[in-house]
Amino acid sequence: MKITRPILLLDKEKCRKNIQEMVLKAKNHNLKFRPHFKTHQSAGIGRWFKDFGVNSITVSSVEMAEYFSQNGWNDITIAFPFNQLEIDEINKLAQQIKLNILLVSSESIEFLKINIKNEIGFYIEVDTGYHRSGIRAENINEIDLILNQSKDFPFFDFKGFLTHSGNSYQAKSQKEISQIHHESLQKMTNLKSRYLAKFPKLELSIGDTPCCSLMNNFAGIDEIRPGNFVFYDIMQYQLGSCSIEQIAVALACPVVAKNQELNEIIIYGGAVHLSKEYILQNGLKCFGYIVSLRKNGWEKPLKNTFITSLSQEHGIIKTTDEEFNKINIGDIIGVLPVHSCLTANLMKQYVTLDGEIIPHMQKNN
Amino acid sequence: MKITRPILLLDKEKCRKNIQEMVLKAKNHNLKFRPHFKTHQSAGIGRWFKDFGVNSITVSSVEMAEYFSQNGWNDITIAFPFNQLEIDEINKLAQQIKLNILLVSSESIEFLKINIKNEIGFYIEVDTGYHRSGIRAENINEIDLILNQSKDFPFFDFKGFLTHSGNSYQAKSQKEISQIHHESLQKMTNLKSRYLAKFPKLELSIGDTPCCSLMNNFAGIDEIRPGNFVFYDIMQYQLGSCSIEQIAVALACPVVAKNQELNEIIIYGGAVHLSKEYILQNGLKCFGYIVSLRKNGWEKPLKNTFITSLSQEHGIIKTTDEEFNKINIGDIIGVLPVHSCLTANLMKQYVTLDGEIIPHMQKNN
Repeated sequence: MKITRPILLLDKEKCRKNIQEMVLKAKNHNLKFRPHFKTHQSAGIGRWFKDFGVNSITVSSVEMAEYFSQNGWNDITIAFPFNQLEIDEINKLAQQIKLNILLVSSESIEFLKINIKNEIGFYIEVDTGYHRSGIRAENINEIDLILNQSKDFPFFDFKGFLTHSGNSYQAKSQKEISQIHHESLQKMTNLKSRYLAKFPKLELSIGDTPCCSLMNNFAGIDEIRPGNFVFYDIMQYQLGSCSIEQIAVALACPVVAKNQELNEIIIYGGAVHLSKEYILQNGLKCFGYIVSLRKNGWEKPLKNTFITSLSQEHGIIKTTDEEFNKINIGDIIGVLPVHSCLTANLMKQYVTLDGEIIPHMQKNN
Repeated sequence: MKITRPILLLDKEKCRKNIQEMVLKAKNHNLKFRPHFKTHQSAGIGRWFKDFGVNSITVSSVEMAEYFSQNGWNDITIAFPFNQLEIDEINKLAQQIKLNILLVSSESIEFLKINIKNEIGFYIEVDTGYHRSGIRAENINEIDLILNQSKDFPFFDFKGFLTHSGNSYQAKSQKEISQIHHESLQKMTNLKSRYLAKFPKLELSIGDTPCCSLMNNFAGIDEIRPGNFVFYDIMQYQLGSCSIEQIAVALACPVVAKNQELNEIIIYGGAVHLSKEYILQNGLKCFGYIVSLRKNGWEKPLKNTFITSLSQEHGIIKTTDEEFNKINIGDIIGVLPVHSCLTANLMKQYVTLDGEIIPHMQKNN
């Protein structure tokens, strides 16, 4: 395979193994598995999940629900606050597939009562500590309001409570991830105890990759919705959610210049390929780890070598004397991304190690 | 125009005025104008430049040069270090149009001597203080090496010295921008004095929007290549390069939730729409200013109201009691982006205030 410009390499074997492991984990804990497809946004990669028996998925936009519905998925949760401006698209989808939406306040109920034309499932999004969106788990008044207002309305199917503990991404240790997870579990199961008698089919759904990867107590939980685990990335590696070997994507980048005085390598690969997401590494911003590419994949990251700065198309790698001398202009090096969801979204396609091109959902379809 | 999902609004009048002003500034200072098209990446917006007599452009990738060449531009500088892996594409382009490339080291010369099949212009990229790429202006040995090795080779046309003072983006004041500009000017004109006798046609080309917008001394400079000025953004506004009224793009976003306790508004508009570029505002990360949309554009930003956090599709706006109460679920609000180049690259199309759709270059054409 001749690489001349940045492309996003996908190690299919690693990716399928990541899927398989999460499928097994869900099975072992007796959890429904509704993976989040916002990370890969790809019909082709979606098909690999089918091989492992997955039939229900999560997405983060109506647009993505439309895309996957067109690609054969018929049980989709849109894990984003209900956007009343997209009511026409939601009605159309709900006519075709089993669709669940998220309510984050009682304000939407009156609108939905007037405008929903088909049966639709809804979860109440609960904030268990992330404080992004959702009703605080303690705000029973608001939850009661939604449930009272929606009851007896024929098109509404209350599915249960859903949360995303995205605060796990800010955790400084696995102990802290565990605390976040167990606090969330406690709040969710409290809600279940409170409402189960009245809604015997209600379920609890949780979602973030760090908790789903690292934790082993899911008592009371019915469904998990991780997404990032399909590729992982160095943010997950830093959190301890994955080993470095589990990262399934690498941006292949041409080396275009070297700066001996600063021990810097300049690559064709910038913010429009990787995104500007960073982690802190030795107190410096790090936009990606560097790996040597091999025919059948890539090696472990080079020591003390990472991208310290990105402009639109340039990436600047700081490295050691030793590594500096091994990398030459005209080489192709690999970058393990900080946040694989954003990198995949920018690159808009994957290239497997066999050279197969797997498309990503496009913008403005 | 019915907006249901994030779209990138373009105020055509503001944009054309930005173009006109920079065209006039170049004319008044007797400078050639070779605008950088990496910001808009759009054949449609490119045509507006033609209305003002612009015929030569700058791009940041071979892919972009191909796109604009297909759209009628035949004098293009690729302001990115020469990537030898793209030699076939470069040869093809050089056969069709007047093409200039950037050399950043003598290492590429031997490769080019063997592989270049058509006449091609080249600039030596000079580092005058940004330290991203290019040869340090003081490194006369390396510059001599390039000029000696390339001389008498029939396909090579040495155009002159080019720099990008991207360090102006880190400046804390206009005084500092002025210092950066004048230091760069000094280094560039020193090179001109040194080499002009031998290369009487050599030119000096400079490029960043802050210097081109704010400075009025371009003595010795032949060409300017700013790009961002076509839209500007709040990073440029913070630097003083533009007024808030000159910003020509705003991301229109549906309001999907409100959090009264935290005075937060949750919008459909996240990292996949805006990019994760931020500025610091009152010590907080700011990912965009918020404006009220009107039929014919948008108003000044709301006071003490900006995006403090972004995930893939969510934007979280912190605001005041007063503004909080004026914004409702189901409204569309506007976001002035931090870095318009990256937002445009993500959105992949513009919608003018009249509802006209103007495409952006696509990925994997």
